[in-house]
This record gives sequence, structure tokens and C-alpha cells, in this order.
Amino acid sequence: MESSIAPHLVCPRTRTRRIEDDYAPPYPCWSARASTSVEQVVMGYFGVQSRGREMHGKACVALMKMAETFGQTDGPRHHDLAHFVDAQGYDNMIAIAYWDDPAAFARWRSSAKVDAWWSSDERLHDGIGYFREIVSPRVEHYETMFNTPDRLEGVGIAMGSISGDIQEHGYWGSARDRIPLAQTDALSPAGALRVVGDTPAHGRRVRIEGHDNLAIIRSGQEWTETRGKERELYLQDMEPVLREGMNFLRDRGASIGCYSNRYMTHIDAAGKPAEKTFGLSLWRSLGDMERWSESHPTHVAIFGTFMRIVQELQFQLKLRVYHEVAVLKPDEQEYEYIHCHPKTGLLNVLAAA
Amino acid sequence: MESSIAPHLVCPRTRTRRIEDDYAPPYPCWSARASTSVEQVVMGYFGVQSRGREMHGKACVALMKMAETFGQTDGPRHHDLAHFVDAQGYDNMIAIAYWDDPAAFARWRSSAKVDAWWSSDERLHDGIGYFREIVSPRVEHYETMFNTPDRLEGVGIAMGSISGDIQEHGYWGSARDRIPLAQTDALSPAGALRVVGDTPAHGRRVRIEGHDNLAIIRSGQEWTETRGKERELYLQDMEPVLREGMNFLRDRGASIGCYSNRYMTHIDAAGKPAEKTFGLSLWRSLGDMERWSESHPTHVAIFGTFMRIVQELQFQLKLRVYHEVAVLKPDEQEYEYIHCHPKTGLLNVLAAA
Repeated sequence: MESSIAPHLVCPRTRTRRIEDDYAPPYPCWSARASTSVEQVVMGYFGVQSRGREMHGKACVALMKMAETFGQTDGPRHHDLAHFVDAQGYDNMIAIAYWDDPAAFARWRSSAKVDAWWSSDERLHDGIGYFREIVSPRVEHYETMFNTPDRLEGVGIAMGSISGDIQEHGYWGSARDRIPLAQTDALSPAGALRVVGDTPAHGRRVRIEGHDNLAIIRSGQEWTETRGKERELYLQDMEPVLREGMNFLRDRGASIGCYSNRYMTHIDAAGKPAEKTFGLSLWRSLGDMERWSESHPTHVAIFGTFMRIVQELQFQLKLRVYHEVAVLKPDEQEYEYIHCHPKTGLLNVLAAA
Repeated sequence: MESSIAPHLVCPRTRTRRIEDDYAPPYPCWSARASTSVEQVVMGYFGVQSRGREMHGKACVALMKMAETFGQTDGPRHHDLAHFVDAQGYDNMIAIAYWDDPAAFARWRSSAKVDAWWSSDERLHDGIGYFREIVSPRVEHYETMFNTPDRLEGVGIAMGSISGDIQEHGYWGSARDRIPLAQTDALSPAGALRVVGDTPAHGRRVRIEGHDNLAIIRSGQEWTETRGKERELYLQDMEPVLREGMNFLRDRGASIGCYSNRYMTHIDAAGKPAEKTFGLSLWRSLGDMERWSESHPTHVAIFGTFMRIVQELQFQLKLRVYHEVAVLKPDEQEYEYIHCHPKTGLLNVLAAA
């Protein structure tokens, strides 16, 4: 058993972990590991927003166009495609791309093909919306967790490697205990979201600056390989409760510090959905995220049901779960929305305020 | 809003709380307050154990005899009577008595009437069992929590007063954040239970020494005043799950650090049960108690259901819940079992070992 925090990121704690040194988790979990030369990663959420069947084809073409540029020199190490219909009835498709080198990302984004297309005024008149939410946590500022060691997801794929069994999981607050910076820092939020450039309105190009210690989580599950009782438990007991929780965050999250939530389904390049979903949310702080996750009846129920399944199935789970959580400095965040409706992403909280 | 830790017990923290300073709990709770002159309290569990209808009358007489002595000079400030049938089919009745002055307790216990009766060899031959589990935490070593401010329970009654709304509750790990000593101490367990005097066997008088930072919790609920939907939610959704959790701890708790668990019902002096129960358990450590409470599906479900009820009923709960948790030094513990079966209280773990 080892710490989730990679050895070269461990430092003397001034802030206490929640567990004793002899704590043994109730089931195994793993964290992704990058090479020690990796100092910062980039998680790029590239979105396309459209409404109605007529515009959907155009949106798909735009998504594919963006994904095509991932194949260029300096493109990401990994990307996923995902879809969800938001509360306003818009289709949102996102290509999520991961780099383990911000310099490579910078070269990619400033390449003629990527930059010219994104910066073009035509994007305001395509009849569909676009957004980019790009977060670039330094390695001290994020953590990952997987309940299976044989296949990574998300940023873990870009990181490329995996830890041994980790100690900091299976209890509330363990995400914080896995973040290297939390060894010495309370990760308290400071400042506020701020619009830069154009004023937010549908049909505009709006940029938003993030504030200190804004937190993001991508938390996923895949039930492709589940069978029989486990599949039934997931689909009948867990998924409906998960959906209820995701809807709460989407519709009423702003009141408790959740700026935005999307409950997304993986799709392939042809748009076919996989048995694989994730929640993607942005929060005022890690503390707000912790408070919701451990006190909202839906999330508490999900955790309880998961623990029950784990025990009933004697730890032989086929359900894959993972997450990645980052707590971000202002210079690690960049949000831009083009012709998106005012409830999109962070626009949502600005509209409310 | 104030800290659960009474002002005169607050000291500079070397160990971090789980919450930010601006944390606002999702519903109100209170802690009991004693006069600042109180340095240590005594929680005495005086038990009578019998089997079958024939012996029950005798056990009741013995219980009443013990309770009678509470009325003497230096008797407790408060006591409760409670009953449960253990996994071995024995009736166990306990008089739980609270003092806010260990010197008064010492005088009471050494009074002729109390001491002569307890020490008499006749107790080994009454055909019923007796036990005393007496824990005497200093005020730095325990905490209390109530969801209603209008009536206290347990040690709170002996303490006599109540705080304002407290900040440290509504999140996992809040019990630790309420214990004054946890401001500077990890409350890690050390040592092991040790038999002193007679070897443990049914029909003997066995004394057990507790070890450093053994933890005890009394966690109760009263549904007397609930009506309609709330009553239904408690009786149909919460109680069966609570019972399942209590049974798990009773039957399989030893594997996870729970030495003993009793799920008890309040009774009046005539033996009539009230709509009021509590779980009473002894643990290797506060850490073990935390791990169970926040990861066992039954307890997680109870917490989730409670949070749901709180929200559904718009915080207008008639269900009363409270608990008291102490983490004990060896000199704050005293356990003695007379003619009790080998699964009684702490004998349970010694028998297993």
C-alpha cells in the first residue's frame, strides 16, 4: 500500500489527514502516475452546442473538425467524446482532450488550423454555440482515483502509469487527502468569477476568468462489463439516484457553490452512446464539493449503495468508477463561450448574479 | 453560531478541522454545556443480566435496588433505564447514571449500601449476572450533539445547560472536531484490553482494564412526537436499517474494532418501553468508529435518509436525535462483570481473542 500522493510530491504535512497511519481501506483503489518530469497537465473541454435536429448535423461536423485537429503535431495524448442534453433542451457535445505538457498544448492551440478557426468571427454566425473550458492544473493541484487498475480514464491515460494500492480512499474527505497541495494548504476559495471582454449574452464571445481555488471534478462510471445482479443493482438502484443528484446540481447547484454540472454519456465518433457516463462539475471550492457529496441524500445514497454492492459482490466488481479532481489557481483556468445560451457552463452563475 | 467546544476549552489547533471557518451547517444542532467548574464527568452503566421469564423478576428487583441507591446523598444527577435482548437470548437491563463530579461518585460508590451489595460474594450466586461499565471522561475528552435545544439527554442532563447553534456538525468527522483534545491530539489507540483478577468465565467476577483512547458512543433517537409522514419515514425507512446496522455491530463488530454494541430501548421503572432507543457501543478507537459510521451501508443509508427527511420536512423535525462520544484514557475506564456470559460487553472480545 502506498500514498496516493506520488513520492516526489510528498512533503511534511502542516494539515492533518483524516486517517491514522495504520488505516486499511475497505477495498482497493489506485491513482494515476505521470513521469516525474511532468509538472502540469492540460484538461481541455471543447464544446459544441446546438438545438433541434436540423442543427445537430452541423454541430457533429464542428465536433469532428475539432477532434481532427487533435491528430496534429502537439495534439493531446488522449481525448473522449461525450454528449448531453441540458436543462434548456440544447444538445451539448464535448471533446475532452488531455495533454501532459502545457507547452505542447500552447503550440497546438496557436497552430494556424486551430487558432484561425476558433478566432474567426464566423463562429458567431454558424447558428450553433461553441465553448472552451480549459483547466491546466500543476501536478500538485489535482488527484485521480480508479477502482480498477487495468485500464485508466481521462487524465490518467495522458499520465500513462498507475500507482500501487493507495491508502487514502474509502472515506469522506479522501479526495482532499490525495491532493499534494492539501498537505500544507486549506485550498480555500478567494475572489469571484469575472467576465472579461464582451458582456455575456447569447450570440456573443464571452471570456470568464476563474478565481483562486475553484474546483473541478470529472467523476465517471462504466457498466459495460457488468452482468446479472451487479448490472441490475447499477441500473435500478444506483443510476436513477445518480441522475437525481446530477439533476439537482444542474438545476439548483448554484445555491450550494456548484457553478455548473453536466451528466454526460460517452459517444463514439459516429455518435453512438457507450455504457459509460460521467458527471462534470465546476465548484466555488473543494469544500463546497465535499459538503454536497457527503450530505446530499442522493450522493450519500450512491456511496452507500456502492459500498453495499462492493460488499455483496465480495469486491469482485465489474463496475468501473473513477474520478479526477483539480483545485485551480487563476492562471490554470480559461473559459470562453461563443454564441452559447446564458445557462451554459459558468455563464449560468453569471446570469444568476 | 459558535464552536461546539466550550470557550474555556478552546486552544490553538495543531490539527486541522475538516471545515472552513465560513462553513454553515445544513440544519441546526446544539451541544450540552457544563459549568466551567466541572472538570470530569462520570457515565456509569450498571447492568443486570438474566435469562428466561423465571429470572426476569429477580433481575428487575436487582435493577430497582441499584436505582434506589441513586437517590442517596452523592447520587447521580440523572439516570435512564434501558433494556435489550442480546444475541445469546439474555435480557440485559441497564441503569445509566451520570455525575458531574467524580468525587461525589466516589463517595456514592463507597457508601455502605452500594459497596457492600456489589462486593458481596452473594452476587456470584444470585443466578443472574451483573456488570458495571464506568467511564469518567475529563471534559476535554468528550462531546455531545443534539438536534433539538429544548430537552437534553444523557450526560447533557447532568451538564445542565446548552450551547447556541454549533458549527461543527452535518459532515463526516464532525464528532472529532467537537472533542476538545482533538484540537491537538490524533486520539490514536494504544495498548490492549487486559483482564485483571479472575480469569473470564461465566460465573466469575472479572475486571478488565481499558486501553488508551478506547472510544464509547451513546447515540439515541426518540420518535414519540413524530406524526404522519415523519413517523412513517422513521419506522419504515430508518428504523429497520438502523437495526440492521446495530445487529452487524453486535454480531460482527469485533472484526472492525467495535468491541461491543447494544441497541437498547428506554423503559420506565415499571419496565414499560418508550418510543426511544439508543445504540451504545465501545470501540478500539474513534478512528474505527468513524470508518464504520461513514462507510457501512447501513449507517450511510441512515445518514442519507436523515438528511432527506430533514430536507423534506423543511427542518421541522419532530424526531429527536442526540449522541455523546468519549475517547478515554486508561484511568477513565473501569469494567467489571459478575457471573455474566462470555459475550457480554468487553468479555466478547476477550472470548474471541
